[in-house]
Amino acid sequence: MKALRVNNRLVSVEEIGAPATEGEALVRVTKSGICNTDLEIVRGYAGFAGTIGHEFVGVVEEPGDRAELTGKRVVGEINAGCGECELCVGGDPRHCPRRTVLGILGRDGAHAEFLTLPPRNLIPVPDNVSDDSAVFAEPLAAAYGIFERVPIDRETRVAVIGDGKLGLLCAMVMRLRSDSVMLVGKHIEKLAIAAKRDVETVKLERVESLRRSFDVVVEASGSESGFATASDMVKTRGTIILKSTFHGATAWEASRFVVDELSVVGSRCGRLAPALELLASNQIRTDDLISAGFKLEDGVDALEHAKKSGVLKVLLTP
Amino acid sequence: MKALRVNNRLVSVEEIGAPATEGEALVRVTKSGICNTDLEIVRGYAGFAGTIGHEFVGVVEEPGDRAELTGKRVVGEINAGCGECELCVGGDPRHCPRRTVLGILGRDGAHAEFLTLPPRNLIPVPDNVSDDSAVFAEPLAAAYGIFERVPIDRETRVAVIGDGKLGLLCAMVMRLRSDSVMLVGKHIEKLAIAAKRDVETVKLERVESLRRSFDVVVEASGSESGFATASDMVKTRGTIILKSTFHGATAWEASRFVVDELSVVGSRCGRLAPALELLASNQIRTDDLISAGFKLEDGVDALEHAKKSGVLKVLLTP
Repeated sequence: MKALRVNNRLVSVEEIGAPATEGEALVRVTKSGICNTDLEIVRGYAGFAGTIGHEFVGVVEEPGDRAELTGKRVVGEINAGCGECELCVGGDPRHCPRRTVLGILGRDGAHAEFLTLPPRNLIPVPDNVSDDSAVFAEPLAAAYGIFERVPIDRETRVAVIGDGKLGLLCAMVMRLRSDSVMLVGKHIEKLAIAAKRDVETVKLERVESLRRSFDVVVEASGSESGFATASDMVKTRGTIILKSTFHGATAWEASRFVVDELSVVGSRCGRLAPALELLASNQIRTDDLISAGFKLEDGVDALEHAKKSGVLKVLLTP
Repeated sequence: MKALRVNNRLVSVEEIGAPATEGEALVRVTKSGICNTDLEIVRGYAGFAGTIGHEFVGVVEEPGDRAELTGKRVVGEINAGCGECELCVGGDPRHCPRRTVLGILGRDGAHAEFLTLPPRNLIPVPDNVSDDSAVFAEPLAAAYGIFERVPIDRETRVAVIGDGKLGLLCAMVMRLRSDSVMLVGKHIEKLAIAAKRDVETVKLERVESLRRSFDVVVEASGSESGFATASDMVKTRGTIILKSTFHGATAWEASRFVVDELSVVGSRCGRLAPALELLASNQIRTDDLISAGFKLEDGVDALEHAKKSGVLKVLLTP
């Protein structure tokens, strides 16, 4: 089968054998999405070698121990836990210390014709959610995961920094619970997408006037300067949510965080079920977040395209 | 009157006029305590010039609009708010944007024969709390303030980094709510003080074996390396509390905070009333935290002494 592989910062589409199931479910990928984390991995983040990609929708060809899934359209939880530790038994493999992660850690990923995951990781996709929409379940779950970490209510004043794919999803999701969400970005056309969802928007160069104005600031720009901007924007006793896996060291003035009693809260993966519900009920629409589609065999070009300024989600079709 | 003053990193005991009350209460200081923040201010932190010192106990000579305080022994909330903003009206001037802070920000401090504060900032000291004990009310309140920021219960596994004055107080206070508190330090004799309070102790060089073991880690060492140690010790989804006003930039690997979903929470001043209760009820004993007493006129020597390795609280008597 074809797979988009990375090895020592080199990417290529290779012809490799279909994965052995070894008790896991075999999924035929119908669509996968390129995430900024994929681009970071190509740059060396996480030291991963193999098939990249962790956003997908597909059809179950071999269901492992869940026969009812055969032929079903599914998305999948990307963290595959040991199945035995307290976290896994409790249904949350996201922090299992022995986990592998689809296309990120010790497990081949989704930019391929087939992938395998533990059967328990798969969730059927409602019929009214298209493939192009279902492929957003994973990043949407990640945005929704913020609610697991920090309470947000109608009065919480939220800013989101970064008008890329993740920033837009975060702004859309925060708007579900808060009456006041502002997206900070560089691109008028991306800010316009947020504005259609009743999110306030501001260009990064205008942000100076908004110092110390927000209860919660979500850093989703993936840049070191994003953290400094977030620090400027957050109120006394406010919270900065770190969403993007920026690769490198960040400098910060710790004493300001003490004096103003700020919080910094890391947030990674969310849960897929609520994300699918948001898509099925049309509470979150993702159609205008797609910039381009490529065939999997042109995956290297797709990655190059995804890197370009102004480009949103790039999808691959095997 | 005599006062211990700092100006452009130079400290001296000067003879200055007694402070004008201008509607505030006038307090004759009977004892003041040297805090590491005093030492940081002398090094240039916060850009303060004037009389330093913010830990004190004294007797009210002029009560302003609270006549019932005349002649009473008091401690004082060090943040003097505008009295009009939402925070001040709500009884919490600690983050008032127009606040001054005793001996730290825009207001002469406690290492002097007299100080002034708004009358509402003063709290009478119970008779059974000695001056030597009452002078700890402010730093003890700061340690107790952690509970305002992070929930701690019997099962919460807590580590405190730094066996100085603040670290010891934090460990003692955390032990009030958690069954498992460990103090990390460099000095056997200081660790022994914590051990007497049923706090587990470990030398910093042995800390390697405790990686990712704690739900909550309190950074109270006042050093840049303390933050790195805290990052190593905290569990996945755990919380680092920043207590010390370390002056300078700290570098951190933000992606680890995202992947492991860590939180960093700044904590500064607490409330004095619960701290006085802890002292009055003997739940917290501070007698063995005092290393030395100096006369105010020898304040410069006292600061030098307080800087020395192994020295705990140094008190000044006007």
